[in-house]
Amino acid sequence: MTEVVVGIDVGGTNTKFGFVDKVGHCYREESILTNAQEPPELFASRVAEAIKGEFTSLRSTHSMIGIGIGAPNANYYRGTVESPPNLSWKGVVDVVGLFKKHIPLPVVITNDANAAALGEGMFGAARGMKDYIVITLGTGVGSGLVANGQLIYGSDGFAGELGHTIVDVNGRWCGCGRRGCLEQYASAGGICRTVFELLAVRREDSELRSISFDELTSIMITEAALRGDVIAREAFEVTGRILGLKLAEAVAHTSPEAIVLFGGLAHAGDLIFEPTHRYMEQYMLNIFRNKVKLVPSGLAEGNTAVLGAAALIWHELTRRG
Amino acid sequence: MTEVVVGIDVGGTNTKFGFVDKVGHCYREESILTNAQEPPELFASRVAEAIKGEFTSLRSTHSMIGIGIGAPNANYYRGTVESPPNLSWKGVVDVVGLFKKHIPLPVVITNDANAAALGEGMFGAARGMKDYIVITLGTGVGSGLVANGQLIYGSDGFAGELGHTIVDVNGRWCGCGRRGCLEQYASAGGICRTVFELLAVRREDSELRSISFDELTSIMITEAALRGDVIAREAFEVTGRILGLKLAEAVAHTSPEAIVLFGGLAHAGDLIFEPTHRYMEQYMLNIFRNKVKLVPSGLAEGNTAVLGAAALIWHELTRRG
Repeated sequence: MTEVVVGIDVGGTNTKFGFVDKVGHCYREESILTNAQEPPELFASRVAEAIKGEFTSLRSTHSMIGIGIGAPNANYYRGTVESPPNLSWKGVVDVVGLFKKHIPLPVVITNDANAAALGEGMFGAARGMKDYIVITLGTGVGSGLVANGQLIYGSDGFAGELGHTIVDVNGRWCGCGRRGCLEQYASAGGICRTVFELLAVRREDSELRSISFDELTSIMITEAALRGDVIAREAFEVTGRILGLKLAEAVAHTSPEAIVLFGGLAHAGDLIFEPTHRYMEQYMLNIFRNKVKLVPSGLAEGNTAVLGAAALIWHELTRRG
Repeated sequence: MTEVVVGIDVGGTNTKFGFVDKVGHCYREESILTNAQEPPELFASRVAEAIKGEFTSLRSTHSMIGIGIGAPNANYYRGTVESPPNLSWKGVVDVVGLFKKHIPLPVVITNDANAAALGEGMFGAARGMKDYIVITLGTGVGSGLVANGQLIYGSDGFAGELGHTIVDVNGRWCGCGRRGCLEQYASAGGICRTVFELLAVRREDSELRSISFDELTSIMITEAALRGDVIAREAFEVTGRILGLKLAEAVAHTSPEAIVLFGGLAHAGDLIFEPTHRYMEQYMLNIFRNKVKLVPSGLAEGNTAVLGAAALIWHELTRRG
């Protein structure tokens, strides 16, 4: 019997799950609708039924030993999700408790970025490392910090909010109510804002001048930059400078062996990696220079979040012995 | 027999040591000249002799079980000190090896801020906490970060350099060769620089207008502020704003239960704690607000560094079982 865990990734639209063994092989990844309007009890029961259904074909050869869940606003210590931005769940929801009711196995939950960090450490770009940071550059900017081989949850379970470190106290308004958060500069939406700032300030021609704020996406900026568009290229330079500065600060905190960039904006490859790395080195204290690797995710595209959630429970089961 | 460890604090002028038991009682603290010009071999041999000499009177009732050393530029992993700023030791010195030659016991070394952090956790203001940060506001700004009950050394042993996170990329020149490091704002010298900036910009009378840059000390600023001097009070406000912002950033990294402020500038009490705490709350992401304690050192004045070094080796001996 091969031992597998279930990795569950709760998204605003779809919830994905898969059965993952200890070396990161993912069996039967499935996706079901999250139904964001549905009460969490119903959601947990539907997902649990789907898991049980999918597992029937594996039952003769595999044993299911735990469940890991990645979800927005999840709290590892309490096993809860609190007022998630994309779901209509109210207040504090005991997600771990709900799942245990249906599947009596060890269940753990954490936010998506922390799950991604454990996934990179177990199956991806940070394999074998004890000190590293994973930054997700998607709709938002998330992060998971690992030190001494352990994820840093902090006193309340909410550590690793690098997306809400402040770039400029008088900067862009953030959804969190403050100004100048990194998330407003280094996310997919952030680089769009940077383009609009540049279009206002600079005089160069740009194909991006014909696109409205509502229409512009980070993929359009990447494509324009690859075609040599000056504004698009400069937007990556600006983004890399800001992200590089904040990564240098993160290095001063935990001195990681590597920083893994993950998610939408990281797909721009060298366009974002080159300036980010250059500025990170420039803004870094001399003792850290030329040591910290800046690398893309090492997890297979598509099921990264499921692998991350699976790594979370594998990590937990290993720790508990 | 009561078990004790030796805590050694290597300073530029004096080296202090003491015998410390597991509850932080310090027996026979002594101080000898460091003789910064002397080769490290001679230094280690002198200190070891002094330790043995002092221990004779304790020998019948106490057993010595390890040595902890706090020193500038110390590397925990390698047991070395590298080009310390205040000593003429050249290159990389194997301090742990030198001490073991004279006293065959477990020996560990780390920098002063990390030792202070472990001291606060074992004997001081962070007793019982698993996640906290200690910031030393002295000639420089040092820090030690503890997460999951362990000091964060990072991949190279140099984690926790919050004094060299950047406040302003175009800011004050720092001894490290870069610009705008926190150390140039929140140290004893930093607040003096802030006073000179304010004297240039503002028109208010101030007793500090009669003091030269070379003469001004942070203690003079504290005394002037206590007498109601507007510039001196504003200097603490500015320092608190900058330090508060950087502490909010540190919270976003590791979400500590408390931040302990330690060293020269922390002695200004409410003058520095009040604005620092106010701005830290203002610049902090909502989920962290009204949770993080900002507290002064809980270690007895005078032998804080010795207690820190002792905590380092106690921590190590406990971990090794």
